[in-house]
Amino acid sequence: MTWESIAEQKRHALKACIPSKWLIPAAIFPPEDQLDVTTFPKESGFFTDRELEITSTPAQTILSHVSSGSWTAEEVATAFCKAAAAAQQLTNCLSEIFFDRAIAQAKELDSYFQQTGKTKGPFHGLPISIKDNFNLIGYDSTVGFTSLVNDPATYNSTLVDLLLGAGAVLYCKTNVPTAMMIAESVNNVFGRTVNPRNRKLTSGGSSGGESALIAFGASRIGVGTDIGGSLRIPAACTGIFTIRPSFGRFPNFQTRSGLAGQEAVGSVNGPLAQTLDEIVLWAKTVVGQEPWIRDPKCLPIPWRSVETKKSLKIAVLWNDGFCTPTPPVSRALKETVEKLKAAGHETITWAPTEHKGLLDTLARMFVADGGKSVRKLLEPTQEPFRPEMKAYEDATEVGTYEMWQIHLARNTLCKSYIDRWNETGIDAILCPTTPYSSVESGKFAYVGYTGVFNVLDYPAVSFPCGVHTDKDVDVAYANHQPLSDIDGQVQNDYSAEAVHGMAVNLQLVGRKLEEEKVLAMTDVILKAISPTNGSKQ
Amino acid sequence: MTWESIAEQKRHALKACIPSKWLIPAAIFPPEDQLDVTTFPKESGFFTDRELEITSTPAQTILSHVSSGSWTAEEVATAFCKAAAAAQQLTNCLSEIFFDRAIAQAKELDSYFQQTGKTKGPFHGLPISIKDNFNLIGYDSTVGFTSLVNDPATYNSTLVDLLLGAGAVLYCKTNVPTAMMIAESVNNVFGRTVNPRNRKLTSGGSSGGESALIAFGASRIGVGTDIGGSLRIPAACTGIFTIRPSFGRFPNFQTRSGLAGQEAVGSVNGPLAQTLDEIVLWAKTVVGQEPWIRDPKCLPIPWRSVETKKSLKIAVLWNDGFCTPTPPVSRALKETVEKLKAAGHETITWAPTEHKGLLDTLARMFVADGGKSVRKLLEPTQEPFRPEMKAYEDATEVGTYEMWQIHLARNTLCKSYIDRWNETGIDAILCPTTPYSSVESGKFAYVGYTGVFNVLDYPAVSFPCGVHTDKDVDVAYANHQPLSDIDGQVQNDYSAEAVHGMAVNLQLVGRKLEEEKVLAMTDVILKAISPTNGSKQ
Repeated sequence: MTWESIAEQKRHALKACIPSKWLIPAAIFPPEDQLDVTTFPKESGFFTDRELEITSTPAQTILSHVSSGSWTAEEVATAFCKAAAAAQQLTNCLSEIFFDRAIAQAKELDSYFQQTGKTKGPFHGLPISIKDNFNLIGYDSTVGFTSLVNDPATYNSTLVDLLLGAGAVLYCKTNVPTAMMIAESVNNVFGRTVNPRNRKLTSGGSSGGESALIAFGASRIGVGTDIGGSLRIPAACTGIFTIRPSFGRFPNFQTRSGLAGQEAVGSVNGPLAQTLDEIVLWAKTVVGQEPWIRDPKCLPIPWRSVETKKSLKIAVLWNDGFCTPTPPVSRALKETVEKLKAAGHETITWAPTEHKGLLDTLARMFVADGGKSVRKLLEPTQEPFRPEMKAYEDATEVGTYEMWQIHLARNTLCKSYIDRWNETGIDAILCPTTPYSSVESGKFAYVGYTGVFNVLDYPAVSFPCGVHTDKDVDVAYANHQPLSDIDGQVQNDYSAEAVHGMAVNLQLVGRKLEEEKVLAMTDVILKAISPTNGSKQ
Repeated sequence: MTWESIAEQKRHALKACIPSKWLIPAAIFPPEDQLDVTTFPKESGFFTDRELEITSTPAQTILSHVSSGSWTAEEVATAFCKAAAAAQQLTNCLSEIFFDRAIAQAKELDSYFQQTGKTKGPFHGLPISIKDNFNLIGYDSTVGFTSLVNDPATYNSTLVDLLLGAGAVLYCKTNVPTAMMIAESVNNVFGRTVNPRNRKLTSGGSSGGESALIAFGASRIGVGTDIGGSLRIPAACTGIFTIRPSFGRFPNFQTRSGLAGQEAVGSVNGPLAQTLDEIVLWAKTVVGQEPWIRDPKCLPIPWRSVETKKSLKIAVLWNDGFCTPTPPVSRALKETVEKLKAAGHETITWAPTEHKGLLDTLARMFVADGGKSVRKLLEPTQEPFRPEMKAYEDATEVGTYEMWQIHLARNTLCKSYIDRWNETGIDAILCPTTPYSSVESGKFAYVGYTGVFNVLDYPAVSFPCGVHTDKDVDVAYANHQPLSDIDGQVQNDYSAEAVHGMAVNLQLVGRKLEEEKVLAMTDVILKAISPTNGSKQ
């Protein structure tokens, strides 16, 4: 079989997992040129009021409804499965579908609750979607390779065991780019996931199946991963929340990787959600399960309560000196800083002193094996390298001695960064998540604003700052001398028309392993941006 | 200049750092065939009663005497400098001597105290010795290479800054083996450090200068490092205490390494001391300084108070299946287990299931650069590889792809180990630290009992268990079929006569990053061994 036919069969099998009752009838199927499909659930009549109520209810409330017996886990699971079925048909965001398993699991939870009066755990009855690379026994984790089709997992990822043990209902896995190493979610097995807010735009990558599913309204909390921006970029492209934690905070063991065994920069996982509260809920609950007992890479740091200063000292990175944010992002950052000042916070300008060095290091780490890991996954089916993976195709393998020198260079940069942090006494860095609000599919070209913090291993929240792109206003921020080739390309590709109306995310970065603090500071910032915003930690 | 003449000059310069008043007069200089020189301080008349009182006082009490003003930092520093001068002359344990600096620093502390009534920090006035690889501005860190002679540090190690900031008085650096990668302390610059309890025996390595200095009585707390046993082996050879922490607990940044940039197994530092209390004091104080603020690799885990169960469940590793402990160590383990049972603790037998795999992995990691790092340090002076470093001389460099596979293999073994720990519900593992009590210089051949826990990154205490070798009793444990070539060699080299009377250390291992707990459990075990033993945490 050719790789093309393997892929075709897999897509066919995936489609067959959607019950026919949940196929969207032709009469209400949005036309291809309908860009925003997030209106579909409420406007199409495809869903009942009860289903819409369930899927638009925050996770905390779902949990309390189920644990009080006013909602059943079954009806909750069913509503999210149906919504996911619609999301898949409109954005191509899923890689594995197991609605039957989910509903059966939900029924078991309901029986358990009815018989014992107790919940199975802190996630009892909450549907949680997971990125393709988390292993769930019996299902593929292809991470976009045709060679991994029909190679179902024989063990669960540590996080999957933890979620199931806590009573979460797993119902689908979400699409990724090949090897999870592209900033858009496109691969040769499932094709491309599009942004439900504007289907000409990317939902980002590599956790772009998750971001599409959540932005569509078919998941309250989904789990993605991040090694260079793979949580924060998809959150930014779709205007939702995420946190990229420091390595070792959330369990990441026994997941599939495109670069298995690469450890110079750690891949981490984290939640994506429509609200900050749901991010905190997931983080607190997962850490509360003491994942370090089972995951040898996890750190025994409990979820800590933090107090946030009333007035924060925030370092603002306006530009990393290499790629200027597109006009709406520059404007969003400026407007946000003005609001922060007005709310009594102090801001200083943050220099990108170490950023180029950190990014060079990151780029070298990713391809240090000469692309062998990716090549070995392509070879069995003679699947070609995708054009976005050219760096892997062209790479030359680095020897261990040289790798050790790269580690040393990285360590020096990390020390310089922490020294600057201490000298300035800042609480956080505020900066773009990406140069884009979102961007037309195929044009995502720069991950430097996220990647630096992977090398530094600092926790970083990507959050919608309340500013939306506006083609009439943003024009004032356009046109500048390109700082680099990539800067020129990003500015050239920028289309105010194409991204009009999209939410803009920013990134808030804290000290290593201070996830609680960076989340609490995000809440402070949300309140400063809009006093009606924000949430209780 | 040849490497030999560089070394000779360096040794000469080192000798010249000892003030002539502290050169031991010929009349009382112990003859070469006097094996135990730990009797020298008390019996030679070289020291005053006051000096002996100071150097035999535990660190906590020294600190309280200085902070109450009853002792001056100057007299304390002077007593330890003089003792270190004697230790150097009798065991060759030092690599750098800076007594003048130490006494000047102590005087400054005294002035500060007199003027302000305050101490400078929690280590105010306590002399602390440091291993050669810690950088102190103005002094060499040769780690045994002639090419690094006369290359004084231009910055301090993070730990050095922390100790100085806390008021500790640094007075000497201690000898190591070449690249710190031999289990005895011998190199081409300074030659060999010998064991003060028996100068025919090794004081271990790589922190063997420290262990000799402390066992002689010339330092209360010294700092060493450990990447395969380099703290625990020297502690075992000299019958003192140490803890090898998990990576990230104590600051290790900006230290010199023989394998710079090697990160597959982390080098860590820790204290060595004559008592468990002093180990705890150092650990608590260092962590209390929040080293994660300055060291980008440190973890923000404060020193936690722990409660220990009255009855521990202890897994006993009698034998790692590859190299049987020598008779006194087997006997010491057996007698200790009997005492633990008698004190109400539960013991089970621990299988070395993953040990061979972990050690193979460790051996591959150390030489993964094909010995290039060591070679590049030897080349400038055409210094030859020492025979103990043959593995580095013969190694072939591994590519990054293969290194990633080694990481994966290691991770699988770590997962298997943690799973077994969880399944059995044990609190700790008790096992030999090395197959030896100590051993004649040149014969230390096996580091497998320590190295596994470096790969696992578990905290491990090496402690004297109260049993001493006895040539008449130990014979009953001798003679068995060798399990491997190395086992045959270790048993062949074993001389009951040579090690007669030496203390035997055992090793207690806890869960990753639970340093507080493994130290508290060691205290429980010490109390079980001898009810008059033990200490307050």
